[in-house]
Amino acid sequence: MILTVPNQKTSTEIMMKAENAFRALLQRIDLGFWQLPERNENWLASEKFAQDIRGYAKHMLVIGLGGSFSGGRCLVESLGDKSAVDFLFNTDPQTVEATFKQCEKYADCHYLIISKSGNTLEIVCLLEILLKKLKSQNRDFKKAISVITEEKSSPLFDWVVANKIQYLAHPQDVGGRFSVFTPVGLVPAAFSGVSLAELRTGAQKAFADKSLITQLAAYYLESFQREETISAFWSYIDQLAAFSPWLIQLWAESLAKKKTRQGREAPRVSTPVTYLGTCDQHSVLQQLMEGAKDKSICFLRSQKLAESGESFTGTQWAGFEYLKDKNLGQVFATQSQATEEALQSEGRSTLSIELSSVEPESVGKLLMVFELLIGVLGEALDINAFNQPGVELGKKITKEKLQKSFSL
Amino acid sequence: MILTVPNQKTSTEIMMKAENAFRALLQRIDLGFWQLPERNENWLASEKFAQDIRGYAKHMLVIGLGGSFSGGRCLVESLGDKSAVDFLFNTDPQTVEATFKQCEKYADCHYLIISKSGNTLEIVCLLEILLKKLKSQNRDFKKAISVITEEKSSPLFDWVVANKIQYLAHPQDVGGRFSVFTPVGLVPAAFSGVSLAELRTGAQKAFADKSLITQLAAYYLESFQREETISAFWSYIDQLAAFSPWLIQLWAESLAKKKTRQGREAPRVSTPVTYLGTCDQHSVLQQLMEGAKDKSICFLRSQKLAESGESFTGTQWAGFEYLKDKNLGQVFATQSQATEEALQSEGRSTLSIELSSVEPESVGKLLMVFELLIGVLGEALDINAFNQPGVELGKKITKEKLQKSFSL
Repeated sequence: MILTVPNQKTSTEIMMKAENAFRALLQRIDLGFWQLPERNENWLASEKFAQDIRGYAKHMLVIGLGGSFSGGRCLVESLGDKSAVDFLFNTDPQTVEATFKQCEKYADCHYLIISKSGNTLEIVCLLEILLKKLKSQNRDFKKAISVITEEKSSPLFDWVVANKIQYLAHPQDVGGRFSVFTPVGLVPAAFSGVSLAELRTGAQKAFADKSLITQLAAYYLESFQREETISAFWSYIDQLAAFSPWLIQLWAESLAKKKTRQGREAPRVSTPVTYLGTCDQHSVLQQLMEGAKDKSICFLRSQKLAESGESFTGTQWAGFEYLKDKNLGQVFATQSQATEEALQSEGRSTLSIELSSVEPESVGKLLMVFELLIGVLGEALDINAFNQPGVELGKKITKEKLQKSFSL
Repeated sequence: MILTVPNQKTSTEIMMKAENAFRALLQRIDLGFWQLPERNENWLASEKFAQDIRGYAKHMLVIGLGGSFSGGRCLVESLGDKSAVDFLFNTDPQTVEATFKQCEKYADCHYLIISKSGNTLEIVCLLEILLKKLKSQNRDFKKAISVITEEKSSPLFDWVVANKIQYLAHPQDVGGRFSVFTPVGLVPAAFSGVSLAELRTGAQKAFADKSLITQLAAYYLESFQREETISAFWSYIDQLAAFSPWLIQLWAESLAKKKTRQGREAPRVSTPVTYLGTCDQHSVLQQLMEGAKDKSICFLRSQKLAESGESFTGTQWAGFEYLKDKNLGQVFATQSQATEEALQSEGRSTLSIELSSVEPESVGKLLMVFELLIGVLGEALDINAFNQPGVELGKKITKEKLQKSFSL
């Protein structure tokens, strides 16, 4: 994994700040997420749980929102057999109906319900609908459903206990958006055929590449100081499409806080956005080039892709003779580099991360690098990167509105 | 289509500015896009072209980038038979290979190549690969391919003429990102079973709802003045998922300009982002609530969805008794409204657009409303909303890089 930061110099002061924040993070034993690669039981239990289900079911539907699905989906869709696992993560009634109908095609479909708190409104709704569907199909819900949730009283966990549903515990010291290396991400990954051992090796390697993380953290600390209020991540790797929504949640929920841990006004951070390949050169590039200088743009590339694809004769089209003996991957990679250079020449701040290829090890490292980056930024900015107080009010108003119409 | 702007008052001055800009736009007969609903031939030729292909092919692959696919995809995926049409709009070699392989399953798959200029590097590459694949399948490319491009000399159009390939002309007075109501959008839509007549009625109705467009334009002009540098569009309608990328391109390429038409520094506009349903309440809401006040958030809802979905007993889960006799759609809609109220209570600027349901007429109107909005904003801000000078440099560097490695 090669990081290139071509047109910004990082001050020694900021580098030291990043290094100190990284050290501080690794002293926080209250945080489970960075300790996960070393917790044997976590990996073994996830593997066994997945293989047990695999023994009697060929298809899985994961039902979860936010951090309860995005890590698992990233692993399955980047590395596994996508056709083996579907995800239901929104409660649009049409989507819910279509997804359950789709699953009825698999007579043995297994339903994995994930909710850290066990108290999520959407999950309670979806589970009630699922139970009705299973009943209408004469399926025993005790065999068709398993659960991942915290081992403490909640509507979901109490139901699990009362009905003896098989479950795995969501570690209490790991936040939902940092849960990709807990059963939340690992059970769907292993079910879809991803090697957890290789994934784990990758996650472990992130810790060995300390300078990558401190450089990245220093870059973004300076980017925030330059008032680059949008952090764009431009992926030239379709296979990693599901990495983007995972990263967006991790970034947005962790870094955007009103108050520091001391109760002062928190520093302004960026809003994450993601773009995709040559497609978005024809979509957002105009804005990145000529719009306000309010963005940093991180390119994500794969060396293997750049060496792949059909090759061209260059003789079929006037004016395109230069395509001769190039292959599609070279053209694709060149377009990405040229886009980055064009942005630099307009004074935009860019960086790039290059993977050798998309394998369990490289993806394991990539995800751990970004989790550590977010943790380091949280320490350096003196904010609590591990809560999400801003989402409570909407939940409260939802409940009040539904209760009100109930009492009428 | 109901627009609600709950917590911002619009000044008379801005309303007048928006009204004048709308009038100015409708005097620009050099712009084809707003005249399309009245051009009979455009609709009839698209319908006939699609039905002719439908006569011998059951599956279509549209190959195009940017505006050449996003409008058609929006129509097909929101309104048509999604399984009938696929889109190839990125040149990641793995995606290209997988898409062509997928299409080989349909022995009669028809390939629709779309490029306004006929000079797009990616299209030249993809067409060369396609021709090789068709040859290896012993298929006659003259029957398997049709084209939409401008009727003027270009690598693509010259090839079309030389090989007598069937084609429809891309109107020269309509920009790619405004081309959804030309053959670019209409041929894939009609092929997938969308009623062009109803779509056209909807597009026409946008002009009758003048106050909707001027109110929207006035809102965004004031939003830009308030330095809300991110315009978020939060859709609670999964069926309209493909509306978001279409809107992003339309907004970003049209509004972000370095210079006004008079050569002065252009006013700062917003960067568009899109979010989805209850899923993103668990993902980005924290940032919208507690991050910088740099966003306006537009909610997109459907009345029909709010009345649909399974209903709940409210007896299965302690603390959720208020779900009794509610259905999923009501809960979904209530969560959306509560999220909007929570954002308002934090002083965030919000608005909402409510569709009665997702039908060809309502989608036709929605798309035309946003095209007109962008045109009105362009006139009001005195910028050229119809070019994209910022994307040329990247193309130039790509060519130089590929030529350089060719000469080595």
